[in-house]
Amino acid sequence: MPAAADAPEPGAARRWVQTVTLAPPTLKDNTADADRLAAALKGLIGAAILEIGLPLLRAIPDRLRRWDYRARCLLFQDGPGGQLVALTAPDDPAPLAGLAVDLGTTRVVLRLVDLETGRTLGESAFDNPQIAVGPDILVRIQHAESDGGREALRTLIVDGLNAHLGDLSRACGLTPADIYLAAVAGNTAMTHLFMGLPARWIIREPYTPAVNRPGVLSAAGLGLRLNPAGRVFVFPNIGSYFGGDLIAGILFAGLHRREATAILVDVGTNAEVVVGNRHWLMGCAGAAGPALEGGVTRIGMMAGPGVIDRVRIDPTGGAFEVHTIGDLAPRGICGSGVIDLAAQLFLAGMIDIRGKLRAEVCGDRWRELDGLAHLVVVPAAASASGRDLTISQADLDSLVRSKAAMYTILRTLTGTLGLAFEDLEAFYVAGTFGAFIDPRSAIAIGMLPDLPLTTYQTLGNSSLGGATLVLCDAGRIGEIDAIRDAVTYLELNVNQEFMNRFSAAKFLPHTDPARFPTVKPWPRG
Amino acid sequence: MPAAADAPEPGAARRWVQTVTLAPPTLKDNTADADRLAAALKGLIGAAILEIGLPLLRAIPDRLRRWDYRARCLLFQDGPGGQLVALTAPDDPAPLAGLAVDLGTTRVVLRLVDLETGRTLGESAFDNPQIAVGPDILVRIQHAESDGGREALRTLIVDGLNAHLGDLSRACGLTPADIYLAAVAGNTAMTHLFMGLPARWIIREPYTPAVNRPGVLSAAGLGLRLNPAGRVFVFPNIGSYFGGDLIAGILFAGLHRREATAILVDVGTNAEVVVGNRHWLMGCAGAAGPALEGGVTRIGMMAGPGVIDRVRIDPTGGAFEVHTIGDLAPRGICGSGVIDLAAQLFLAGMIDIRGKLRAEVCGDRWRELDGLAHLVVVPAAASASGRDLTISQADLDSLVRSKAAMYTILRTLTGTLGLAFEDLEAFYVAGTFGAFIDPRSAIAIGMLPDLPLTTYQTLGNSSLGGATLVLCDAGRIGEIDAIRDAVTYLELNVNQEFMNRFSAAKFLPHTDPARFPTVKPWPRG
Repeated sequence: MPAAADAPEPGAARRWVQTVTLAPPTLKDNTADADRLAAALKGLIGAAILEIGLPLLRAIPDRLRRWDYRARCLLFQDGPGGQLVALTAPDDPAPLAGLAVDLGTTRVVLRLVDLETGRTLGESAFDNPQIAVGPDILVRIQHAESDGGREALRTLIVDGLNAHLGDLSRACGLTPADIYLAAVAGNTAMTHLFMGLPARWIIREPYTPAVNRPGVLSAAGLGLRLNPAGRVFVFPNIGSYFGGDLIAGILFAGLHRREATAILVDVGTNAEVVVGNRHWLMGCAGAAGPALEGGVTRIGMMAGPGVIDRVRIDPTGGAFEVHTIGDLAPRGICGSGVIDLAAQLFLAGMIDIRGKLRAEVCGDRWRELDGLAHLVVVPAAASASGRDLTISQADLDSLVRSKAAMYTILRTLTGTLGLAFEDLEAFYVAGTFGAFIDPRSAIAIGMLPDLPLTTYQTLGNSSLGGATLVLCDAGRIGEIDAIRDAVTYLELNVNQEFMNRFSAAKFLPHTDPARFPTVKPWPRG
Repeated sequence: MPAAADAPEPGAARRWVQTVTLAPPTLKDNTADADRLAAALKGLIGAAILEIGLPLLRAIPDRLRRWDYRARCLLFQDGPGGQLVALTAPDDPAPLAGLAVDLGTTRVVLRLVDLETGRTLGESAFDNPQIAVGPDILVRIQHAESDGGREALRTLIVDGLNAHLGDLSRACGLTPADIYLAAVAGNTAMTHLFMGLPARWIIREPYTPAVNRPGVLSAAGLGLRLNPAGRVFVFPNIGSYFGGDLIAGILFAGLHRREATAILVDVGTNAEVVVGNRHWLMGCAGAAGPALEGGVTRIGMMAGPGVIDRVRIDPTGGAFEVHTIGDLAPRGICGSGVIDLAAQLFLAGMIDIRGKLRAEVCGDRWRELDGLAHLVVVPAAASASGRDLTISQADLDSLVRSKAAMYTILRTLTGTLGLAFEDLEAFYVAGTFGAFIDPRSAIAIGMLPDLPLTTYQTLGNSSLGGATLVLCDAGRIGEIDAIRDAVTYLELNVNQEFMNRFSAAKFLPHTDPARFPTVKPWPRG
């Protein structure tokens, strides 16, 4: 993430762990031990109240005396209220750990962080065990409405988290009891299922979550096996379709800190887009009616070994060069590979401006199977299965609809704000999928606007990045609240103007080629 | 409690239970259910944050829809933070109950209150089960330092509370699960033992409690069997010798609300005194060195059936009229009875100004037993035991020291402030013992200053009264914090001036009779 020149000086990160030295009590000031400690900590973190639970209250007097009124304190703060979570000897070498969680619908990623130094201790990832109920979040929400379904889904994800955080902490030489804080970023439905909240109203008009701002919950109450005093910060959401994962992304990209206007696109199951700067933020999500049903990333298969992620066509000879993950024999093509392929096909004239395969240009790569045009990407001899690896006209049509939807959302959101794409200083592409998209290809098919390539920056897993920031800097909680309150959510009403724009965007790169001056199909060989 | 003319208008009590009506969500405002509720409640109680625990978060969406977005809410608030404790149907007739606890060293009193109406549902009392370890708080603190001693003492009082609150709620047609809030007022040592906090530093220089402001704790964490979501407010203390019981007394007397200066004396094991008004408060406690060792109320036995609580001597014939509790045959004399007796003996000339029995005036009531002068209060024929009921010179000497200590504390505190007793608009006498003291007798022996009798007002159990106010009015928590912060604690350094004053006060009523113009011994018959 680049530090833009006009970003406000963020100051040093304020760690959750603070070592304090207190003046011991005297006859002149015999303030109680807990209140003496609380006063010092309140001053340090700027909290109005500092809550200390009974187990620590019971331990404080003896510990403070044993440590000569010095102590290492782990504090959690949410708004005006702070909580003392742990109290150790000032020189205790054992790390006090935090856990960042990207709670994805498909994949869950964990990162263990030393709360005192901000150092990453380790990472792991696992498939969301709720996939056993349904890969689709809608199916899971419906299952949650059945008898015992909600609890079953909650148990699946919580058990999965407990198992993997156990493994991860062991791998780092720790135990789960060394983990005192967790920061969890996920979309609204996933965080609801994780907390065991009813999700049925999320998907029904008027699309009302059970909670926007879960705040700080007890790990024990959530069933997470961290330290028994452990606290869990669940990122707030803005609505059913604008989740904490996206707020984590804004935090990670730093959109809310810069004077210059930038845009953030999270290409996940939906297209979630936020544009703004330190003064304002506006966002929308792509679940916007029939035009977008099926989402924007349903083409191709999930990335994995042997999956094609990059495609080049030789402009002179027409040879295909495909790159697979792990450099194995190709067995399929993932989303970023499909975008690459479509861009190259279009530039090579093998598909027309509607995205239709041109048999006469495709030559011996063209096939008709089950009455549908196909293109051979990898011939049988070179593929992993020993069969032709093809892409169908239906796949390409789906891609065209998806890219048109993405572009229309971007244009509608910026247009609503009276902005041209050129007004955007940076264009952040978030999400694991987004990290692999080649902006040149996305521009060539008219999925992303034709901006200088230096404008595009990939953020990788910005949910995990945002959750990690929370563990490294206590000041971030306040920022997250400010972001949540600053974002104006734009309802993408699919009106006639939206549909007109969508239709115009269904050409490669667009019906108005002047919008894409750098996209120039190659001269016919 | 009289409402003084210049008291600030306190406004209507704000109940912990509020019934709210919310606007149901729409597409234009689909704020989450919990946040919708929280916003309304924050507005109602003026809190910056409102915490909702996971069990209620899970229930809110369905309940709000079932009740058409109306609900009866039980809220707890402590500083800027509020907590939603219970959520019921708006027309649910079952009371949401609160429990006021006077956590006395000797006696524990419970009162069950309807949190919605403020109505008292029932009361009960029991001897503090820790008496089994030692009647004296010092003995208990020492026991708490032994292995397992702290937990044993904690268990004694918590089990006692659970048993009696179970009985009390049953008697009121409720169960302990109907109790959501408790307000506990006790001295600093008792509240520490109740919470299982180390008390050893309370009694050692520089007399530092573990905590001054315990705030709001979970009933479950304390081991109290209220509703599982129940909260317990433990009154804050100002120091080891100025406890939450006295802060509850100030609250109950309303000292902190009035323009006019008043004084509050809590005659318990120590003499605890606070003087002040809405602008300032100053307090001190009587554990102030050798002169006061043994306290001010160690004379006589505890009040109970057959115990003499009032004594009159006929000024002409010299006959004794004694009143016993329950009008039974006399079996002993309690503190208020001793004060009455001493006053009457002094006025009748049967003791001199040093409190010494005058054999020649006492006549056949005078005895010498074991070399010590005694006075027969009730002859054998009329007593419950069939033996003479007597008071010894040692008892009278002890009373004189006690009354001198009390008067000296009162004079020192007011003197420090440059006040004369006549500047006090009201003189509140708190404590169960205090409720039975006849001010005329206390003045006659020079224990209390010679002020118009209308100045004296007894408050009864002001700890319980203060705790009850908290249950009836959510605004009281803020007042309690303000009281705690406003009180200046005066250390009663036993210097030469204090000792001189103490010596002067060891005469009946005083070496300077001009200080007690209304006290006139009867002309000799």
